[in-house]
Amino acid sequence: MNKISKLIGGEEIVKGPKHHIVVSSRVRLARNLTDVPFPGWAKKQDRLRVMELVLPILEQLPQLKDGWAEALDHLTVLEKHVLVERHLISREHAAKNVGSAVVISRDQSVCIMVNEEDHLRMQSLQPGLCLREVYGVIDEIDSNLSDHLPLAFSPKFGFLTACPTNVGTGLRASVMLHLPGMVLSEQINQIIQAVNKLSYAVRGLYGEGTEASGNLFQVSNQTTLGEKETEIVERFEKVINTIIEHEENARLKLMETRPQTVVDQIGRAYGILTSSYILNSREAMNLLSMLILGVDLSFFPKLPRALLDRLFIETQPSHLQNRQNQKLTAEERDELRANIIRDALQKTDRPKIKHELLVRTDKGKKDQEAK
Amino acid sequence: MNKISKLIGGEEIVKGPKHHIVVSSRVRLARNLTDVPFPGWAKKQDRLRVMELVLPILEQLPQLKDGWAEALDHLTVLEKHVLVERHLISREHAAKNVGSAVVISRDQSVCIMVNEEDHLRMQSLQPGLCLREVYGVIDEIDSNLSDHLPLAFSPKFGFLTACPTNVGTGLRASVMLHLPGMVLSEQINQIIQAVNKLSYAVRGLYGEGTEASGNLFQVSNQTTLGEKETEIVERFEKVINTIIEHEENARLKLMETRPQTVVDQIGRAYGILTSSYILNSREAMNLLSMLILGVDLSFFPKLPRALLDRLFIETQPSHLQNRQNQKLTAEERDELRANIIRDALQKTDRPKIKHELLVRTDKGKKDQEAK
Repeated sequence: MNKISKLIGGEEIVKGPKHHIVVSSRVRLARNLTDVPFPGWAKKQDRLRVMELVLPILEQLPQLKDGWAEALDHLTVLEKHVLVERHLISREHAAKNVGSAVVISRDQSVCIMVNEEDHLRMQSLQPGLCLREVYGVIDEIDSNLSDHLPLAFSPKFGFLTACPTNVGTGLRASVMLHLPGMVLSEQINQIIQAVNKLSYAVRGLYGEGTEASGNLFQVSNQTTLGEKETEIVERFEKVINTIIEHEENARLKLMETRPQTVVDQIGRAYGILTSSYILNSREAMNLLSMLILGVDLSFFPKLPRALLDRLFIETQPSHLQNRQNQKLTAEERDELRANIIRDALQKTDRPKIKHELLVRTDKGKKDQEAK
Repeated sequence: MNKISKLIGGEEIVKGPKHHIVVSSRVRLARNLTDVPFPGWAKKQDRLRVMELVLPILEQLPQLKDGWAEALDHLTVLEKHVLVERHLISREHAAKNVGSAVVISRDQSVCIMVNEEDHLRMQSLQPGLCLREVYGVIDEIDSNLSDHLPLAFSPKFGFLTACPTNVGTGLRASVMLHLPGMVLSEQINQIIQAVNKLSYAVRGLYGEGTEASGNLFQVSNQTTLGEKETEIVERFEKVINTIIEHEENARLKLMETRPQTVVDQIGRAYGILTSSYILNSREAMNLLSMLILGVDLSFFPKLPRALLDRLFIETQPSHLQNRQNQKLTAEERDELRANIIRDALQKTDRPKIKHELLVRTDKGKKDQEAK
C-alpha cells in the first residue's frame, strides 16, 4: 500500500463556474519565517527546524483538519510525481528530500509546500473560475498562520521572499484554461502575445518551461508588488474573463464557418481513443481535449465530463505507474494508457451530430442565391 | 441516367486465390492492324476506320457477349475516369475522344481499348492470383481476332507495336498486391529494389508515375521479347509467389514481435473510419488497407472483406462524383467519402483482439526466465 493511495482514490471531480473553459483557479502565497535562512541557503538543521516549527501549526488549521502531511524523504519519487501531476506540488519540490514536506487538505483544495523555494508556499486550488474564493481561503490561512508564526515582512517591500519576483504580496494567481477553439482557429499565439504584453505569463500544463498539451494553458500574474492582493486578483480576473470571451467567440465562429472541421476533429478523437492500443501522453491529452470540447458542444449527451477530467489526470505517466505499483517503460505506459481510455470510453455512445450542422454553408448560400 | 451506370451497379466482388495478398491478376496484349498507321500517327479517318473494322468483330466474340461498347466521344470526362478508377482503361485512354473506343465484357473481366497507344489493347482481369487463367482468356480472344483481322506481325520481331518496349509478344502481365506487412516492417523498398533488378516494374495504384496508396503495389513484367508468352507468365508467377511468401512472413513476424503496433494501427483505422467526417482519398485508402489486414488477421469476424473492397473502389474521386451525378469540390468529396465509409462501417463490430496477443513478448520472456 503506498502512501498516497488514500489521498488520490476515487475523489469526485466537481464542476466549477465557467468550467467549459476554466479548468481550475489557484492562488498561492509565498511566506518565510524571520531569522531562518531561505531554504536555498539553509543548512539541513535549519530546514528541519522550520518543519518542526511549522508542521504542528499547519496541522491544527481548520482548513487542513483530517489532512495529509508527509516529509518528502518519506515519499518515493513516483509518489512525489503523482503529486506534481495533480498540481499539488511543483517539480522543484518533488526533487527535494530531507527537510522538506507537504501538507494537503482532505479535499486537495489546499496544499502547503514546506521548504520549497520559500519556507512556505501555500496554495488554494478549485475547479472553475473562482479566484476570489480561492484567494479568500488562502488569505484566511495566512492570517491564522501569522498569529502563530513570525513571518518575514518589511514595511517597505512587504513580504520577503527568496526570489525578488515574489516580494510584496507573495501572491501568484493562476488559472488553467482549456482553449481548443483558439488553437483550432489559430488565434492562440495572438492571444498569448496580448496577454504577455499585459504582464501575465502563459505556460503549458506543468508550469514554467513546459509545452502546451491538450490545449491547456496556464495563465498567471507576473507582478506581486505595488498593488493590494484583492486588486491583483480582480485585475487578473478581468483578463481571464476577456480570454474566456475570446474562446467562446472562437468556438462559435468555428461552428459557423467550419463545422465539418470541428466535428471531424471531435469524431476522430472519439474514434482513436476508443480503438487505439498505443497512446502516448501528449496524444492522449490532445484527443481528450477534443472530446471535452465535444461534450461542451453537446455532441455526447450521455458522456459525463467528469469521466474525461478523470482520465486526463489518471493517465499521466506517474499516475499509471502508481496504479500498477511498479515502474513502467514508456511502451508499457502507452499501452496501459490506451487500455484504460479504451475501456472507459467504449461503453459510451458515438457523437450525435445534427445533420443541419454539416450542411455546407457555402452550399446553403448558393441555394439561397439560386432562389 | 449516365452511360456507365448499368456497367458499375451492384456487381459482386468475388474472392480469388491468395486474395489476402493478391488483389487482382491481369494480362494484356497489344495488337495492331497491318496497313494502318499506329494511333499516335493516324489521322482521324484512319482511327475511325480501325473502329469500323474492329468493333463489329469484337462485339461478336463469345467473351464479350452482352458486353458494353462505347466510343470515347460519347462518354463524359467523369464517366471515363470511373473506368480508370476501375482499371478498365488507362489514364491515357481516358484523355482520348473521337476515334477511340472501349469494349467491356458484362462481368468486367475482359476489356479492350481501341486506339489507345496501339490499335488494340486487350486485357483480361480477375481477382486473386490467376495469371494463367487470365492469359488463357485473352489468348483465346487473340486467336479468335487473328482469324478475322490482319494483325501486324514480323517473323523476326513478333507482334509490332507503337512503342518498342511492347514488341514481340505485346504481353504485359501485372498483379495488384496488397503489402501492408512489408510496409509496416519497412521491408518494402528492399523488395521493390530486388524485383526491379529482375526486370519487373513496381508501381502505385494507377500505374506508371503514381505513388503507392493503401499499401497497394502493381508489379508487371518489363520485357516482352525473347520468351514465349507462357514462359513470361510462368516466370512472372514465380516472382509473385516469392513476394507473397515475403509478405506472409512479414505479417507473421510483425504479429510475433510487435503485435501491439499492428493491432494499434488496425484499431486506429477502424476508429477513424467509423468516426471521421472528412477523409481524403489517400488517407481513406491507407486506413481501409489496415482494415483489410485486420480482416485477413481474423480481427473482424463479422466484417465482410467484400464490403471493404467495394468501399475502396466506390470512394475514389470519380466514383463519388458519378454517384452524385455532379462535379464535387475536393472538400465535398472528402466529406461524402467520410459519410459513406462511416455509414457502412458503424454497423460493424469493433475489432476483437485476443488478450494473449497483447501480452508483451519481452515480459513473457522475463516471466519465463524468472521461473
